[in-house]
Amino acid sequence: MTTMTMKVAREEPAVSHTSRYALPTEPKDNGTRSNLCSGPLILLSHGDPTGFKPFWRSVGDKCKVTIDSCDFMSYLTDVGKVCWFLEKELEEAIRQLHRTVGNAATDDRYIVVGTGSTQLFQATLYALTSPGGPESVNVVSAVPYYSSYPEETNFLRSALYKWAGDAYTFDKEGPYLELVTMPNNPDGQVRGPVVNRNDGKLIHDLAYYWPQYTPITAQADYDIMLFTFSKSTGHGGSRIGWAVVKDEDVAIKMTKYIELNSIGVSRESQHRAAKILGAVSDSSQCIGANFFQYGKSLMAERWTKFREVISRSRLFSLPKYMEEYCQFSGEDTEPHPAFAWLKCNNDIEDLEIFLRRYKIMGRGGRLFGSDPKLVRVSMLGDEETFNLFLERLSSIQDTIGNGNGNGNYI
Amino acid sequence: MTTMTMKVAREEPAVSHTSRYALPTEPKDNGTRSNLCSGPLILLSHGDPTGFKPFWRSVGDKCKVTIDSCDFMSYLTDVGKVCWFLEKELEEAIRQLHRTVGNAATDDRYIVVGTGSTQLFQATLYALTSPGGPESVNVVSAVPYYSSYPEETNFLRSALYKWAGDAYTFDKEGPYLELVTMPNNPDGQVRGPVVNRNDGKLIHDLAYYWPQYTPITAQADYDIMLFTFSKSTGHGGSRIGWAVVKDEDVAIKMTKYIELNSIGVSRESQHRAAKILGAVSDSSQCIGANFFQYGKSLMAERWTKFREVISRSRLFSLPKYMEEYCQFSGEDTEPHPAFAWLKCNNDIEDLEIFLRRYKIMGRGGRLFGSDPKLVRVSMLGDEETFNLFLERLSSIQDTIGNGNGNGNYI
Repeated sequence: MTTMTMKVAREEPAVSHTSRYALPTEPKDNGTRSNLCSGPLILLSHGDPTGFKPFWRSVGDKCKVTIDSCDFMSYLTDVGKVCWFLEKELEEAIRQLHRTVGNAATDDRYIVVGTGSTQLFQATLYALTSPGGPESVNVVSAVPYYSSYPEETNFLRSALYKWAGDAYTFDKEGPYLELVTMPNNPDGQVRGPVVNRNDGKLIHDLAYYWPQYTPITAQADYDIMLFTFSKSTGHGGSRIGWAVVKDEDVAIKMTKYIELNSIGVSRESQHRAAKILGAVSDSSQCIGANFFQYGKSLMAERWTKFREVISRSRLFSLPKYMEEYCQFSGEDTEPHPAFAWLKCNNDIEDLEIFLRRYKIMGRGGRLFGSDPKLVRVSMLGDEETFNLFLERLSSIQDTIGNGNGNGNYI
Repeated sequence: MTTMTMKVAREEPAVSHTSRYALPTEPKDNGTRSNLCSGPLILLSHGDPTGFKPFWRSVGDKCKVTIDSCDFMSYLTDVGKVCWFLEKELEEAIRQLHRTVGNAATDDRYIVVGTGSTQLFQATLYALTSPGGPESVNVVSAVPYYSSYPEETNFLRSALYKWAGDAYTFDKEGPYLELVTMPNNPDGQVRGPVVNRNDGKLIHDLAYYWPQYTPITAQADYDIMLFTFSKSTGHGGSRIGWAVVKDEDVAIKMTKYIELNSIGVSRESQHRAAKILGAVSDSSQCIGANFFQYGKSLMAERWTKFREVISRSRLFSLPKYMEEYCQFSGEDTEPHPAFAWLKCNNDIEDLEIFLRRYKIMGRGGRLFGSDPKLVRVSMLGDEETFNLFLERLSSIQDTIGNGNGNGNYI
C-alpha cells in the first residue's frame, strides 16, 4: 500500500465547512468568481449513501417492516441489560453480521446502540474522560482525519476533552485519546495508532471496514469499535450506529451518555436495522442476492470509471491502493473507498474553491488537517450524480489542460 | 390554583438518581432496611407512557406504517429548509395538531425536530449560548424543577452554560437562561417565569400542555417551546420531539447542534409520528375515537382512584388543583397531571427510601431541588402496575396509620 501521509501545517483551526444552513446551496456569482457551468449543482461533500438504493429497491418486500400504532411505546427494552434501550433483535443481528463478515470480534463484548456513530463517538469521549480532572483530555487523530472530529469534540467547549489535532505532531504530556479510522476517511488508507504511549486510549472508527470498500484482512479486536448502519448497508436516514465495547464500565458510561443526551435511540429504526442487517447476513436465503457483492461491484465500477477519466490528463490524481487478500470474499481484492481523495497537480491553490466554480461541491483538504490542493468527494451518491460529476471533471480537464503528475497517484 | 412552592435548601447538588445501570433494580436486603413486601417491583420512577397503549391497540391498522427497504436512505429531506432533516409530512402534522388543539402558535414559526425533547433541550442551551464568552451562562428553573435538568446541563462540563439551580433564589449577575415547564414536572402546577430580568432568555418546556393532562387555557406563544411525541400521544420509544421557534438564527443553531450531535433524527420515527399525530388531529375520521378524550378519561379515573385511597388516611397527601375552562374541550376541567407529587405527613424523612422498602420505586423530592418528604410517581404506566401501586399504598396506610394532614393537600 502506498504511503500518502501529508503533514501539512494548518493555516487555521478546522472550522465548519457548512454555510448558514447545514448544506451548501447554489454558489452565488459575486462578480469575481463567476460560475463556469450552467448545469445542476453536484453535491459530493457529504457521504450520503444513496448509491446502494437500486439494490434495496430490487429486494422488494423481503425487508419491508410494518409497525402498528401500539408498538414501541415504552422507552425501555430490557432494564436488566447494560444498554437498556437496545432492541434484542438488533443486538442479535449485529453479532450475526460480524460473525458472517468476519470483520470484528463480538463474543464477550457489549453492544451499545446510538443515534448514528456520531452520537456514539461523543458517548465514547464522555465515557473515557468523565468525571474529569482539572485538565481536559487531548483528543488526536492522524492527518488526514475525518473533518467532523474537531468540531464534534469542541463545539460544546467541554472541560472533559478538547481537540488537539494531528496525532503525528502530538507532543503534549498526560492522558490522551486517539481516534483510529480504519480504513481512513478521507483517504481510504489502512492505518494503526500513531502516538503509542501508555497513557493513551484508542477509539477505532470502523465505519468503512466492510467488504464493499476494503478487503477484510483480519477480525478487528479493539477495545472500542464504532460501526454505522449508514455505511454498512447505506441506510443513512435511520441514524443507527453501534459500538462493540470490551469493558463493561465503558459500555455503562456510554449508555449513560445516550440516556442523558436523548433517552435512548429510535426503536422503529432499530427494528428496521435488525431486519435489514439480518437479511444481509443471510443474503442468499432472505433477499436472493449478496449485498456485499453488489456493493463491491458498484464501488469497483465507479473507481474504474473515475480513474479512466483522471488518466486522460495529468491535472488530477487519485491515491493508489494495493490488492490484499479478503477473508470474506476469499480473493485478492483492491480497496474501493467510500470517498475519493482527489488532488490537483497544477497551481490551483484551493481545489474546493476551484471545483465550486464548476458547481462541484466537495470538501476541502484543510478541514481534514491537510492540503487545500486536495478535496474529498463522495463515491456513494446516486448513479446519475456520479456520472454527471465524471462528465464535468472531464470537461474541466479538456479546458484547463495538464498539471504536473505525482508518483504516488495515478 | 393552590400554591405549593417549596423553597427547601438542598443538602447536596442534584445527582443522578440512577443506579449503576440506568434503571432501578430490585432493592437488596442489606440487613438494616429489609424489604417489607414480597410482591413485584413497582416501577414509577420514570414517565414511561405505556398507559395509553390500550387506545392505540384499539385503533388497529389505521395508523400502521409500512417501510420498504429502500425508503429513507438519505440523510437529507430538504436542503433548502432551516431544519434540513425534518420530514415535510411531520412538519405539517405538527402544525395541524397545534391548530386543532389550540395549545401553541405555529404560524410564522420554525419547527425543529429532535431525538426527543431531551436532545432539543440541549440544542437550545447550545443555540442560546454559543459561541460563548469567558463566563458560562447560568441555567435556572424554579423549584421543584424537572430532575434531569441539572445533570443534562452539567454532565459534559460545558464552558457555554452551567446549572445554577432554583430560579427563586437566583441572584447572580449577567445573562441567564430560565426553564419554564408548564404545566410543571413534577407537581403539575402552571407557572410563569420567575427571575424576570432583561438579560434572561426563556425556554418553555410544554411537554405536558395537552388536554389529557391540563385545561388548555390559552394558545402558548413563547420564543422557544418544546414538545414531545412521548407525552403527547404516549410514543416514548420513538424518540421524537419538536421545538417551535420564533427566531430563525436560534432555529439554525439548534439544527446545527443536532447535525453535530447525531446528523439528524430517525426518519422512520418521523414518518410514524407524522401518521399518528395526523390521525390525532382528525380523530373522528381517521381512528374513530378521540385520543384526547380517552387520555383525559384515563388520567381523571386514575387521579380519582388515587385520591380515594389517599383520603382513607392522613399519612399521604396530594396537591389540589382548581378547575379552569379548557378551550379545547369547551368545558371546565381539572388538571390531571402525568405525575403525582406525593407527600408524607408523618415523621418519615425520606419518602423515596421509605417506599423503596415496599418495592415502590418513585423519584425523591431532593432530585427536584425540593423536600425528601416528597416523591414523584408516574401516573402514565400500565393499568396493572398502577392498580398494584394503589393496593400496596393502601396496605402501607393500614400498617403505618395516620400522619399529620396539611391544608394544601387532600
